[in-house]
Amino acid sequence: MGRHHDTLSFLSDYGTVDEFVGVVKSVVRTLAPHVTVVDVTHDIAPHDVRAGSLALMRAAQYLAPGVVVAVVDPGVGTDRRAVAVEVADGDGVFVGPDNGLLAPAVSMTGGARRAVALTNPEYQLPMPGGPTFAGRDVFAPAAAHLCNGVDLYELGEPVDPASLLPSLLPLTTVENGVVHGQVLWVDRYGNVQLNVDPEEIAFIGDRLLVRWGAEGAHGSDANVRRAIRARTYGDLDGAQLGVIVDSYGLVSLAFDRRSASAELKLRTGDAVALAAPS
Amino acid sequence: MGRHHDTLSFLSDYGTVDEFVGVVKSVVRTLAPHVTVVDVTHDIAPHDVRAGSLALMRAAQYLAPGVVVAVVDPGVGTDRRAVAVEVADGDGVFVGPDNGLLAPAVSMTGGARRAVALTNPEYQLPMPGGPTFAGRDVFAPAAAHLCNGVDLYELGEPVDPASLLPSLLPLTTVENGVVHGQVLWVDRYGNVQLNVDPEEIAFIGDRLLVRWGAEGAHGSDANVRRAIRARTYGDLDGAQLGVIVDSYGLVSLAFDRRSASAELKLRTGDAVALAAPS
Amino acid sequence: MGRHHDTLSFLSDYGTVDEFVGVVKSVVRTLAPHVTVVDVTHDIAPHDVRAGSLALMRAAQYLAPGVVVAVVDPGVGTDRRAVAVEVADGDGVFVGPDNGLLAPAVSMTGGARRAVALTNPEYQLPMPGGPTFAGRDVFAPAAAHLCNGVDLYELGEPVDPASLLPSLLPLTTVENGVVHGQVLWVDRYGNVQLNVDPEEIAFIGDRLLVRWGAEGAHGSDANVRRAIRARTYGDLDGAQLGVIVDSYGLVSLAFDRRSASAELKLRTGDAVALAAPS
Repeated sequence: MGRHHDTLSFLSDYGTVDEFVGVVKSVVRTLAPHVTVVDVTHDIAPHDVRAGSLALMRAAQYLAPGVVVAVVDPGVGTDRRAVAVEVADGDGVFVGPDNGLLAPAVSMTGGARRAVALTNPEYQLPMPGGPTFAGRDVFAPAAAHLCNGVDLYELGEPVDPASLLPSLLPLTTVENGVVHGQVLWVDRYGNVQLNVDPEEIAFIGDRLLVRWGAEGAHGSDANVRRAIRARTYGDLDGAQLGVIVDSYGLVSLAFDRRSASAELKLRTGDAVALAAPS
Repeated sequence: MGRHHDTLSFLSDYGTVDEFVGVVKSVVRTLAPHVTVVDVTHDIAPHDVRAGSLALMRAAQYLAPGVVVAVVDPGVGTDRRAVAVEVADGDGVFVGPDNGLLAPAVSMTGGARRAVALTNPEYQLPMPGGPTFAGRDVFAPAAAHLCNGVDLYELGEPVDPASLLPSLLPLTTVENGVVHGQVLWVDRYGNVQLNVDPEEIAFIGDRLLVRWGAEGAHGSDANVRRAIRARTYGDLDGAQLGVIVDSYGLVSLAFDRRSASAELKLRTGDAVALAAPS
Repeated sequence: MGRHHDTLSFLSDYGTVDEFVGVVKSVVRTLAPHVTVVDVTHDIAPHDVRAGSLALMRAAQYLAPGVVVAVVDPGVGTDRRAVAVEVADGDGVFVGPDNGLLAPAVSMTGGARRAVALTNPEYQLPMPGGPTFAGRDVFAPAAAHLCNGVDLYELGEPVDPASLLPSLLPLTTVENGVVHGQVLWVDRYGNVQLNVDPEEIAFIGDRLLVRWGAEGAHGSDANVRRAIRARTYGDLDGAQLGVIVDSYGLVSLAFDRRSASAELKLRTGDAVALAAPS
């Protein structure tokens, strides 16, 4: 028997309008009643594996020790593997599809130690219909049994952790004093997180030029705007665009109490370039 | 005293923008602190008793043993009865309005054994205002007291289970080789669940014609499209419409990673006809 | 050591699309695993301190004893104070920004007994980036430590409860037989809660004239409509506008199964006047 767990963290693109999330939790509650479920979020855009992997990565270091179920799974029912991946000397196990969703969080928490494909039907629910609700029929029972102390390798075929699908997160480039990045995330307040580390823009100083556009930061539709470095939103004047180190340690574009995303028309995936004013 | 319960499953049309759900849970937490609440969904469209009853029915067989509170209650405060209905030899009790909402789930879990109208004010909260928040003042306290071991019949007047309002779910008809059904549910991904059992269309084979329209499957606005039987979404080509047995065992219309509802302009309640290609 | 708590009630404007709520709960789960979190709501409009304070006030008397975390915090990271406020002989502690958000709920539950500014870094998380996620780094750890029995005054500098920022809720006025009020809240069903106590309109009787408009109840865009007093929604005829005592004991405008907000074009903050028909 493996170790017992009493927390299950749960992220998905199921939304909360349908009963999917409730059914998954009910399966866990029935099989492992001692477990507390912590919802990370269920409003990842449908099938957006990349957005799910980023949200899971941002949350990863704060999750309570235990099992993490993550489901953004457009390939459900095909031959994509369903896996469980053990990290951190067994303090944590990630359960979900092997489509890159889990990869950044697994790295963030120390890398995979052991992994398994969830192929053992003894630890799945009998399906009343087709194979399209793996959260209910495969992932939830696997997670519940892990919480009950079933060893990882009981759940199916061992998998080489090196064979798990990686997640390709975008890298920045620096050219002629210009830092080229990309929008990773727009949060509820409209703050625009970039894939840029504060150290990468340290050479620019407290005043910056920001360029962006759907066709790239130098495309024909490119915009340009001055911005200043600030510590928090409230340090900005009304119209001032701020370059902030956000709560995850990445560079963000923000206004005070207004949506930078709405005002700059910036969305996830857009190219953004940062440089010194000329 | 009846048996104790430690799980309360909760479905409503309260939404999660207002504090209604939080207040109901707080009442339960105060009266029965040992109980864990599992949210099924709270985003049933306001007053849509039929959609609520279908979601509850889909979830029913997966719910953990215990008390289930369901509230979609346009007649709150009128003379519609508030009831608690015991099923499955007392392993489960459904609590909610007697307006058809509970009926399909009660059937699904073996039928009513005993039922009661929630008329005993000792097991209700004093109301600071009007009688319009029965979830807080009537259903939550009744559920909490049931979890604490209060017997069903303590909560009010016994009710003949046969007098509970049934839910009239639509039936299919078959005529001249055509199966006439209806859209029961459109899920978050746009998959379109019909009230059709896979056995009803087995005679048609792997290639089908689908007809539909807001005025009926043969109305003047009717559409027609070819579809193929498939096991899961990923087995479909880009433009191919699939007829799938969904995870609840019913026939669904689906595309791979696109919304069938949006593309076919199909909504809950629309008529759909399935037949062999001519 | 102070007393232990095992319930944490949680309200915010974080929404549930991002992982903010999940991360806050994960921090609590890691530091104080015995605690159950009850979500009040997380869909307060971004930065709407007044709406948050009203929702918290409506919920306050129903919350289970324990710690309450409330976060609507446009001034996060500035010199606005982060505070914890003890009420009800220590049965409850409110944790959040000192910006008026907590004030009505604190009053509702008996007023502040002791208060503290959350300045002790020993009870905060190390920040990987800027100071913009106080829910995660300051409020959640403070709440978890309070639940573990840490005394209020361990968390930082004592604060004079009289110095906490009050919330200025609108008052009604009565002039020439007309009661002038304001829309406090529009709920999911479109019911329109006013800041009017039923006793204030008792002199008018069962038939009323309602006046309203974005420029004030007597502005050039003002509307007027007849309404009747009713006990519940179902007592109203199809087109009849009802004046109801809602479940919180305040006067509301409502239709049966239709949205009064949508039909009357009434929104939070709009002026409304009630009088006898002339």
